[in-house]
Amino acid sequence: MVEHKYVIGLDYGSDSCRALVVNATTGEELSSSVKLYPRWSKGLFCSPEENRYRQHPLDYLEVLVDSVTDALSKCPQGVAKNVVGMAFDTTGSTPVLIDELGIPLALRPEFAENPNAMFVLWKDHTAINEAAEINKLAREWDVNYTELEGGIYSSEWVWAKMLHVLRCDASLAKSAYSWVEHCDWLPGVVTGTSLPSSLKRSRCAAGHKAMWCDEWGGLPSEDFLTKLDPLLKGFRDRLFHDTYTSDTPVGKLTKEWADRFGLSTDVVVSIGAFDCHMGAVGAQIAPNTFVRVVGTSTCDIMVSSYDEMEGCIIPGICGQVDGSVLPGMVGLEAGQSAFGDVYAWFKRVLAWPIESVIASSALLDEATKAKLVEEAIDSIIPLIALEAEKVPAGSLSVFATDWMNGRRTPDANQLVKGTITGLTLATTAPQLFRALVEATAFGSKAIVDRFIENGIKIDSVIAIGGISQKSPLVMQILADVLNMPIKVAKCEQACALGAAMFAATAAGVYSSILDAQAAMGQGFSKVYSPNPHNAEVYKSCYNRYKLLGDTTEASFFSNQ
Amino acid sequence: MVEHKYVIGLDYGSDSCRALVVNATTGEELSSSVKLYPRWSKGLFCSPEENRYRQHPLDYLEVLVDSVTDALSKCPQGVAKNVVGMAFDTTGSTPVLIDELGIPLALRPEFAENPNAMFVLWKDHTAINEAAEINKLAREWDVNYTELEGGIYSSEWVWAKMLHVLRCDASLAKSAYSWVEHCDWLPGVVTGTSLPSSLKRSRCAAGHKAMWCDEWGGLPSEDFLTKLDPLLKGFRDRLFHDTYTSDTPVGKLTKEWADRFGLSTDVVVSIGAFDCHMGAVGAQIAPNTFVRVVGTSTCDIMVSSYDEMEGCIIPGICGQVDGSVLPGMVGLEAGQSAFGDVYAWFKRVLAWPIESVIASSALLDEATKAKLVEEAIDSIIPLIALEAEKVPAGSLSVFATDWMNGRRTPDANQLVKGTITGLTLATTAPQLFRALVEATAFGSKAIVDRFIENGIKIDSVIAIGGISQKSPLVMQILADVLNMPIKVAKCEQACALGAAMFAATAAGVYSSILDAQAAMGQGFSKVYSPNPHNAEVYKSCYNRYKLLGDTTEASFFSNQ
Repeated sequence: MVEHKYVIGLDYGSDSCRALVVNATTGEELSSSVKLYPRWSKGLFCSPEENRYRQHPLDYLEVLVDSVTDALSKCPQGVAKNVVGMAFDTTGSTPVLIDELGIPLALRPEFAENPNAMFVLWKDHTAINEAAEINKLAREWDVNYTELEGGIYSSEWVWAKMLHVLRCDASLAKSAYSWVEHCDWLPGVVTGTSLPSSLKRSRCAAGHKAMWCDEWGGLPSEDFLTKLDPLLKGFRDRLFHDTYTSDTPVGKLTKEWADRFGLSTDVVVSIGAFDCHMGAVGAQIAPNTFVRVVGTSTCDIMVSSYDEMEGCIIPGICGQVDGSVLPGMVGLEAGQSAFGDVYAWFKRVLAWPIESVIASSALLDEATKAKLVEEAIDSIIPLIALEAEKVPAGSLSVFATDWMNGRRTPDANQLVKGTITGLTLATTAPQLFRALVEATAFGSKAIVDRFIENGIKIDSVIAIGGISQKSPLVMQILADVLNMPIKVAKCEQACALGAAMFAATAAGVYSSILDAQAAMGQGFSKVYSPNPHNAEVYKSCYNRYKLLGDTTEASFFSNQ
Repeated sequence: MVEHKYVIGLDYGSDSCRALVVNATTGEELSSSVKLYPRWSKGLFCSPEENRYRQHPLDYLEVLVDSVTDALSKCPQGVAKNVVGMAFDTTGSTPVLIDELGIPLALRPEFAENPNAMFVLWKDHTAINEAAEINKLAREWDVNYTELEGGIYSSEWVWAKMLHVLRCDASLAKSAYSWVEHCDWLPGVVTGTSLPSSLKRSRCAAGHKAMWCDEWGGLPSEDFLTKLDPLLKGFRDRLFHDTYTSDTPVGKLTKEWADRFGLSTDVVVSIGAFDCHMGAVGAQIAPNTFVRVVGTSTCDIMVSSYDEMEGCIIPGICGQVDGSVLPGMVGLEAGQSAFGDVYAWFKRVLAWPIESVIASSALLDEATKAKLVEEAIDSIIPLIALEAEKVPAGSLSVFATDWMNGRRTPDANQLVKGTITGLTLATTAPQLFRALVEATAFGSKAIVDRFIENGIKIDSVIAIGGISQKSPLVMQILADVLNMPIKVAKCEQACALGAAMFAATAAGVYSSILDAQAAMGQGFSKVYSPNPHNAEVYKSCYNRYKLLGDTTEASFFSNQ
């Protein structure tokens, strides 16, 4: 009997952490466990009106132990002792200020309740001004450090965020020695390598978000950073020079963490990366394949050979980084700031009468009301999608842009906002919903077109993430608008599976991540083929979308 | 004891007819009765998706008898025999094709179910193409017949509508001898003067909607009309040459109608007019007073002296017609195609989850559900207005245009549509509602500005109509945006009261309508004063509204 080896993929999403125990040989999923971040679930430290979203480091640590031990407890006996690797993927850019010992400032008693001392979640947009300053300075500088990050630095990214929190709080700035991305912090913690001097940084996070590039000697120069703000003086030297691809081991579990998990100290922990990059690997990304993680927002990932990328700089995407997805290829990232969040927004608008009006009714008792309200709100999206499906493509005068959360790519601009036009007195709620779905699909097409216009061939789309599994309406409209077939990955936990593939590679089960993908990949559950008629109709609809975006952006939402 | 005289004002709105019995000496309202149009209430003959709205002539006749007899039955004994006058106001332009006997074609058995043989309600927009053709031809013609109707002929107006229905149906065209406006038909019917040769036509309808003007000899020339379409050949001669102000008697009730009503054959019936024109009179319009009838749409009425109007042609309004409101002054009409209808539209959007989602719940029995749904839908506007009131003026990024039903004035364009922009993931239903209220107020300001820019002084605003009585939020925002105080007329039935004033004048109780206004007017119930801070804030918001309108109109909604 073969003694199987196992690996654990840890996927830190926006709301929860998932631990996935995987057979390293076959890719079979043995068990998984999802744990919500406890403080985040209560809405602590956030202010949606200001687009401020912060997460406490204790949230991450608590769910780590809980999810791993819970997942292992569901496995057959003998699995835990044969776990050989562990890898982390997280949201990003989600950085935190750390002290000289590498400890996130919110873990120090004096900053325990200070949102600026916590991880600044990817979707936090409080650093809009700082991003604008970075863009201004970068354009004047002799090296354009934003060039490989699409030419526009975003308020969602680490330098803008860290500068913002440093400026917000003088006492914090005094205690801040360096900063760390979420995906780099956890491997450091569990392997005992979290001192700033020993922290190993991920190529993915550094290249896509921190303007790190070999070509200009790593991070932007000290001159650039102090010119941006003297507050940044000294940080560059205390940060990092080298970065690593995710097939690289960081180290092994410390005794303390191995005991907590119930694992051995031989478990190899590999370099972390952002969730979508590992998700793309888990979904079997290959050259010329456009992988979309379709959830509240989208993250779009491609890999391209050095040959294809020779001399190619793609403007307005989130970045092109050697080895950020698959080692030995250039990883390309793009994405929409809001995708499922656009539908969730409309659901909240439609939930208002249920919550407010039903709640004030004297016809029902409180318990029935509460149950009815909950049930009704849960039914909104499924029911409205059924109605929206009946509307023929292109039959509506109503159309929209998808910028309710700003625009990430192409051409980041967090100041733009959403628009719905073509409204008549006959426009219905399901028609509005369909227009919003179409708007998110048009936003996707704008990204795909940007790649194609810059010579990147795309012959296949793979979708992963909740919406790809749950919403046939959205996926069909996306296929029609892109006029490309979309394969939905069978694996529902592609990010955690991708992490497991990297863990297996770093632990030596495979000699390369490509071998791990081939052995552990799970294939596809469904293919959405474009409807030729709708694809044709949507071509002209897309032109209206672009014009609506251009005119509203130029008239109302000034550029960064 | 003085023997009082009484008059009956009949107000035909979009959905119902109101009969108001008024003391002709004091203006006191004795009783009223409202009757819904029976076929219209069932949605017959209409197609909202195509903006087709038709009303059957039997609807008008049935409610006439019912409302008058019902109103009289609520009066003290002796009132009926002392009724001396009756007058009609109706929606408009709401015309119908008639045969040689003056009978609306839908009253002939072969056309009884044919929507094109029925009255084409004011808000019907099926004649967009015909209006565009009229505009094109008028611009090329040596006389610009549209000049006194704002320079842009609308699809809501009689020539466009009649040409449209003639084109729709060849059998109808063969039987059509002439056409009549709703406000001219009813006085003709009850006085036995409805033969085409004896029908007396209202100055108000003819001047504002039929391009009738003394200056060019009445209606547009036969050349113009047959050039527009040979189908119109001969209609001009079979229509009318003279028109009359509403203080003119049409005749007295026929025996048959007097018996039906329970009135005497001495009752004088005066020339009809459109509802808002009579409403303005009922609300005590005077020079430099801007009277707004604020309901599903708005109708805005002014009167101006011959001196002030000397040589003045105001572009882009609905018309300037000598005597259309008060005899001896120029009546000016403008209006918004949708006002309360914009809120009603948003209410329907918000009602969707209540109707669809609650209805599919298994938690409640059918009776409770039906009751809950009805109660909930009725509560939407009152509850959302309370929430919207808490939002400070100008604090929202979201703003909108009010063109969900096209734009009537300034510069009619039925092809434009509504837009909402500045949407973020934090935008709530009450914020959307407030933005829509603000949009309707900005649409009002665009009209007021057009008058002022053309030298018409406005020093006072009077509001009548349902919304002026029911919605403090809307009226306050309107006062703030216009930066003018708004007086709300005490009389809740200003249109019917205005009709009663004309009835009293035509019957000889007063020697002029001004005397009738002075004696029968009811004053004001409330004044909304502008909040100076909000008025200032809304100045820049209004500029955004104008820019949003200009850019979307130019980009997406081609002009007529």
